[in-house]
Amino acid sequence: MKPCSTAINNAILITMEPGKAILEEGSILVEGDCIADIRSGAGFPSAPHRQIIDGTHLLVMPGLVNCHTHLPMSLFRGLADDLPLDIWLHEHMFPAEAAQMSPAIAEKWAMHSCRELLLSGTTCCCDGYFYEDYVAKGVEKSGIRAVLGQGVMDFPAPGVPDPGENIAIAEKFIDKWKNKNPLIHPSIFCHSPYTCSARTLKRAKEMADSQEVLFQIHVAETRNEMETVLSNQGERADSVVQYLDGLDILDRHTLMVHCVWLDEKDIDIVKRKNSPVVHCPESNMKLASGIAPVQSFMAAGIEVGLGTDGSASNNDLDLFSEMDMAAKLQKVALYDPCVLKAKSVVEMATLGGARVLGLDHRIGSLAVGKQADLIAINLRQPHLVPLYDPYSMLVYNARGSDVTHVMVAGFFRIEKRIWMAD
Amino acid sequence: MKPCSTAINNAILITMEPGKAILEEGSILVEGDCIADIRSGAGFPSAPHRQIIDGTHLLVMPGLVNCHTHLPMSLFRGLADDLPLDIWLHEHMFPAEAAQMSPAIAEKWAMHSCRELLLSGTTCCCDGYFYEDYVAKGVEKSGIRAVLGQGVMDFPAPGVPDPGENIAIAEKFIDKWKNKNPLIHPSIFCHSPYTCSARTLKRAKEMADSQEVLFQIHVAETRNEMETVLSNQGERADSVVQYLDGLDILDRHTLMVHCVWLDEKDIDIVKRKNSPVVHCPESNMKLASGIAPVQSFMAAGIEVGLGTDGSASNNDLDLFSEMDMAAKLQKVALYDPCVLKAKSVVEMATLGGARVLGLDHRIGSLAVGKQADLIAINLRQPHLVPLYDPYSMLVYNARGSDVTHVMVAGFFRIEKRIWMAD
Repeated sequence: MKPCSTAINNAILITMEPGKAILEEGSILVEGDCIADIRSGAGFPSAPHRQIIDGTHLLVMPGLVNCHTHLPMSLFRGLADDLPLDIWLHEHMFPAEAAQMSPAIAEKWAMHSCRELLLSGTTCCCDGYFYEDYVAKGVEKSGIRAVLGQGVMDFPAPGVPDPGENIAIAEKFIDKWKNKNPLIHPSIFCHSPYTCSARTLKRAKEMADSQEVLFQIHVAETRNEMETVLSNQGERADSVVQYLDGLDILDRHTLMVHCVWLDEKDIDIVKRKNSPVVHCPESNMKLASGIAPVQSFMAAGIEVGLGTDGSASNNDLDLFSEMDMAAKLQKVALYDPCVLKAKSVVEMATLGGARVLGLDHRIGSLAVGKQADLIAINLRQPHLVPLYDPYSMLVYNARGSDVTHVMVAGFFRIEKRIWMAD
Repeated sequence: MKPCSTAINNAILITMEPGKAILEEGSILVEGDCIADIRSGAGFPSAPHRQIIDGTHLLVMPGLVNCHTHLPMSLFRGLADDLPLDIWLHEHMFPAEAAQMSPAIAEKWAMHSCRELLLSGTTCCCDGYFYEDYVAKGVEKSGIRAVLGQGVMDFPAPGVPDPGENIAIAEKFIDKWKNKNPLIHPSIFCHSPYTCSARTLKRAKEMADSQEVLFQIHVAETRNEMETVLSNQGERADSVVQYLDGLDILDRHTLMVHCVWLDEKDIDIVKRKNSPVVHCPESNMKLASGIAPVQSFMAAGIEVGLGTDGSASNNDLDLFSEMDMAAKLQKVALYDPCVLKAKSVVEMATLGGARVLGLDHRIGSLAVGKQADLIAINLRQPHLVPLYDPYSMLVYNARGSDVTHVMVAGFFRIEKRIWMAD
C-alpha cells in the first residue's frame, strides 16, 4: 500500500526558496502530492501510514528541470557524431527519423529517455518532437512531469506527411492533453525560423495564445542561421530575433531555445518582450554552434533555464553535467572565473527552469504547498567529500548517478536508486 | 585465495592497440600481473584457480591514465570556488595548505583521492605535490599505479620549510621510492616558472636527468604568467616556452602541464624538443585560464595526455567527464565539430597518457604481455543505450560511475563497484 505521507528527516535541505536557502539539518514532510511541512532540527515523528526516511548523509533538493529535450531521439544517441550541424541534421537525423520513427518507437524511446532523466535527478522536462501524442503516453507511464510540444515544420515530418496539417495536428494534440493528466502540459514546438515560414510561425503563435500554452522555438542556434532565415524571408530584419519580433511572436510565453547568436540589440528586445531563454551548452559545444551570452542574459534580467537538448546531440540527458559545463564554459568564454557562480547555476536548473516554463507556482523549490518534486543525493561517496559549499558540490562534482531518491508529485519513482513499479 | 588467472569472456573489447581496435565479442585472459591472451569469439574455458567473469553487457578497455593530479588537495575540494586563479591560489590554497597540510593529512587525502580515481576508472595517475613520501604511502595502500613528483618551489612549502632544501628533499624521495614498488615511479615536480628561479629549474632538471625520472612543470597556464616570469627573469625571451627552452630543460622527459598560452613559435619548439603536454580543460575553464590549442598540438604531432588537475580546481578526478569536456571545448573554440573526434580523446586518456608518462611499453592498451590495467563498464543503463559507436559512448555519455570492475596489475581493486580489501 502506498503510504499517505513521507518524511525525510535530518538531511541537508537545499530549498532554493529566495531568502530561505539551506537548512543544514532539515526535515521535509510530504502528504499526498504536496510538501506539507519543512522544519529545522528534530525530524518528523512516526505516524500511521507514514514512511520515514533517514536523511543523514543525504542532500535533498528540488528535482531538476530540463527545459529542452527531444525525448524519442535517444534512439539516435551516438549514431552520427563529430559532424557539422547541417550535415548531422540533413544527412543523418532527418533521414533516420524518416526511416525509423513511428508511433510505437516514439513512445518506447520517450519512456526510455524519461527513465534516464529520472535516474539522473530530473523531475520535469520540456520536450519538443513529433508523434507527441505517443511521446505523451511514454511520459505518462514514466511518471515524470513534462511540458510536451508537438512539432511544426513546413516540410514532411514523422506523423505529419502533409505540412499543411502541421498546426491542426498540434492543436488536436493540445486539445487531447489539456486536462488529461496534471503532470502533462501540452504545448507547441515550432522547429525553427529556417524550417517554418513567417505565416506558419504567426499562425502557430496565435493558436498557442488562444489555447494558453507555451510556444517553443529554436532561435539563433548557429551563425549561418541568420543568413538562411533572412534570405528566405527577404531582408526585413538585421537578426533572427528582430525578424521574430517583427512577426510579433516574442512574449512571456515564447520559449527561445539556444540563443547563441544574439547581439546587444537582440538582448534588449528579448528583455523588453520578457521572453524566457533556454541554454543548452553541451549541444552548442558538441555541434560547435557557439557560446551563448548567458552572463549578458542574466545581467539584463532575462529568465534563463538549462536544457540538455536531445540525446542525439549531447549525448545524454544528465542535467548535473550540464550545470558543470554551463558554469565552466561561461567562465572561460569571458576569462572571468567569477561569472555564473555555482548557486546561480543550481537556480537555473531548478526554480529558474520552473519560471521559464511558467510552472514556478507549483515546482522548482521546496516550499510548503508546492508539489512534492524532489530528489536526494547520497553524500557518502569519495568524490563528494569534503563538503564545504553544497551549491559548489552540486555543480562541480556531483553526477546524475549520485541521485538515490526521486519523487514526482509525492510519489517515489526511484528509491535507493531502484526503479519503483507503478 | 587469490585466483591465479582471471578471464573476462564475451565482452566488447576496446584494445586501443594501433590497427587492432575493437573486438565486438572479445575475451581477455589475465595471468599474474599481465595480460596473457586476448581472443575473439569463444571465451576462455574454466580452469583450476581461474576466475571467470561473464562479460556480456560489459565493455572492457585499458584503465584510464590521469596525467595531472595533486592528490592531497581533495581536502580542499570546494573550499574556494568561482574566484580568480591568483586569489584562489594565494589567498585560499597556500594559506589552507600552510594551516592544515601535514604528513598524516597528505597520506589520508591521497588515499581518498586514489579511491575516487579507481572508482571512476583511472588505473594510473601522475601526481605532483608536497609530503610526497606520505602521498606515496597512501597511493601504495590504494593499489593504483602512479608517477609521483615531490614538489619544488622557491618559497616555504608543506614539509619544505627551507626552500634551499627543496631539490635535496626531492632527490631523497626519488632515492627512496626508485625500486621500492613496481607500481610507483618517483619523479620531480617543479611547481612553475613563476615560483621557481632559473637556477632552481636548471638544477632540478639536471637532477631529474641523472636519476632518469620524469620532470613535471606547470607551463603557461594563465595569460599573465608570461609577464610575471619575464619581469622576474629579465627580458631574455618572448614567451614562457622560449624562456624554458633557453634554460635547456625541454626534452622528451619534461612533462609540460596546461600549455594554454602557446603561440605557433612555441608549438614548434615543443614539437622540436619532443616534450609531452598535459591538457586539463576543466581546471582551465573553471579558473578561466583559457583554452589550450590542443588541436594544434595534435596536428603538430605533439604527444598529449589528459589530466583533471587537483580536486580544488575541477572539482573531481573523473576522467570520463574530462574527456567529454575536452572534446566539446575544442570543437566550440574552433567552431569545428569535426576536431578532436571521440576516438582521439579516448586515446588521449589511455595510450596517449601512457606515452606522455613514458609508460606505454607497460600500460595504456590491451595487448598480450602488457600489464593488466583494465576497467569494465556496465552497458545496461538507460544513458548508454543504444550503442552505435563505443568511442562516442565513452566520451559523450559514459560517466565514471558506470565503471563496475577496475584491475591494476592483475588485481581487482573494484569488482561490481565494490571496493576490494587487500
